[in-house]
Amino acid sequence: MQEYLAAIDAALEQILSRNPLTPHRVLDAMHYSVFAGGKRIRPCLTLAFCQLCGGDPTTALPFACGIELVQTYSLIHDDLPCMDDDDFRRGKPSCHKQFDEATALLAGDALLTMAFESLSQAELPPERVVKAVEIFSRLIGVVGMIGGQEMDLEAENPDTRPDLDTLRTLCARKTCALLQASCQLGVLAAGGTEEQLSAAGEYAYQLGMAFQIVDDILDVTADPEKLGKPVGSDAANGKVTHVTLLGLEGASQEADRYTARALSLLERFPGSEPLKELTRNLLHRDY
Amino acid sequence: MQEYLAAIDAALEQILSRNPLTPHRVLDAMHYSVFAGGKRIRPCLTLAFCQLCGGDPTTALPFACGIELVQTYSLIHDDLPCMDDDDFRRGKPSCHKQFDEATALLAGDALLTMAFESLSQAELPPERVVKAVEIFSRLIGVVGMIGGQEMDLEAENPDTRPDLDTLRTLCARKTCALLQASCQLGVLAAGGTEEQLSAAGEYAYQLGMAFQIVDDILDVTADPEKLGKPVGSDAANGKVTHVTLLGLEGASQEADRYTARALSLLERFPGSEPLKELTRNLLHRDY
Repeated sequence: MQEYLAAIDAALEQILSRNPLTPHRVLDAMHYSVFAGGKRIRPCLTLAFCQLCGGDPTTALPFACGIELVQTYSLIHDDLPCMDDDDFRRGKPSCHKQFDEATALLAGDALLTMAFESLSQAELPPERVVKAVEIFSRLIGVVGMIGGQEMDLEAENPDTRPDLDTLRTLCARKTCALLQASCQLGVLAAGGTEEQLSAAGEYAYQLGMAFQIVDDILDVTADPEKLGKPVGSDAANGKVTHVTLLGLEGASQEADRYTARALSLLERFPGSEPLKELTRNLLHRDY
Repeated sequence: MQEYLAAIDAALEQILSRNPLTPHRVLDAMHYSVFAGGKRIRPCLTLAFCQLCGGDPTTALPFACGIELVQTYSLIHDDLPCMDDDDFRRGKPSCHKQFDEATALLAGDALLTMAFESLSQAELPPERVVKAVEIFSRLIGVVGMIGGQEMDLEAENPDTRPDLDTLRTLCARKTCALLQASCQLGVLAAGGTEEQLSAAGEYAYQLGMAFQIVDDILDVTADPEKLGKPVGSDAANGKVTHVTLLGLEGASQEADRYTARALSLLERFPGSEPLKELTRNLLHRDY
């Protein structure tokens, strides 16, 4: 995974520095947020699935960058005052605090746009690239990630608190959809089969559910220093989470179940030991 | 052009209604803004250039819809309080006034995302679709339309008022870039030559410059009823425009020159009479 990380950072640096521009405040803001300490889990998944399906992970780098650029845009827009109004992200000022709201808005828009530019640069058979654009745009659009953001806003309304089913749909859209895109774009880059595409999507769903539940648990139990943000913010905001609905013990068991299913789906991909380790680590992380 | 308009509206309705969703506030906001009375000039250009280059304009509809979805997203985000803070757009409440800021932000994000989904749906050779994604994403990204928005913000700062050269670069990015995408995606859909692609881009540049200068003039001279917004807002905001720098008479002559160059570029496209008429009408419009 260390090799993947270096390759991803170099590719991100390259796509962001391709364009010397005047003025360059928006570009600076894009760079600031892309290199603000993200763990690059999603683009690593893209490269890993490409390799698991017999492809050269280098060919999947433009897809992996697209995924990370979208992850970054979604965090910038999510932190804006009209959304979650978060002043900090991973212990650093969020984009609109470091720059300003208009710059953060445009930086998010530009990162989303650049993600598709990155996809178009892949040196792969064009039909695979078109399919990647199709799958990606649906999973991060109004039926996917953006729809999840909308449900998240709705969930904050005291009159429309989610039950467990609604919370699961919210999580499937908000968290799982981009993870599904991450894994499936790797399969696509390798020219994998429909079965592999579907198994990768299912793995990502189970992983995303486990990931979100662990997030909910950490908001209650984590060391704020390690987490890079205050703990207890969900409860303070009256937010309904898996912990609220299932209790700490119940949420923890639920995360275990999703993780077990994710691990069993990886059985279909020979050579997936490093990915199994990553999957276990995400469950047992403390930040 | 009337035929084009009907086909574009039907295709936009179809892509927006493909996804029955709960909740659907963001989808409602997308629909509200897409059908808020836009003149559909840009998607008409896409279909027109497809036809001029010997293609079937129906095959270019997914590209034309992508253009209009991006035009709509850019207006929604541009109207937000942290940007131009406009309460009205074409005489109707702007998206964040009709809904709310968070919904307008997400609706813009979702329209931008859906634009690329629309491109991916084109039933055209995949290499043309990939090229369309590449050209489109660059022209509407940080080196194009978004860069123009950034320059526009900078131009509002009393310490960095633009001179004529800077104003032209601003206009080339903010206004011309999306028009260039509109025309060039039509050429691409038809499988046109590199020469046609380049001439279409140059025509769009001249058209965009003329279009923006006429906009600047109308802000001074128009009937506010017809314009759908108050006149004199540029002057009230201390904004530097072609009218400020060249005077009404000088700006008008400048618009004439750009229009003449645009018309002469259309000479390279046999059968472009309707497009010439549209070009002249845009110069002589009163709203």
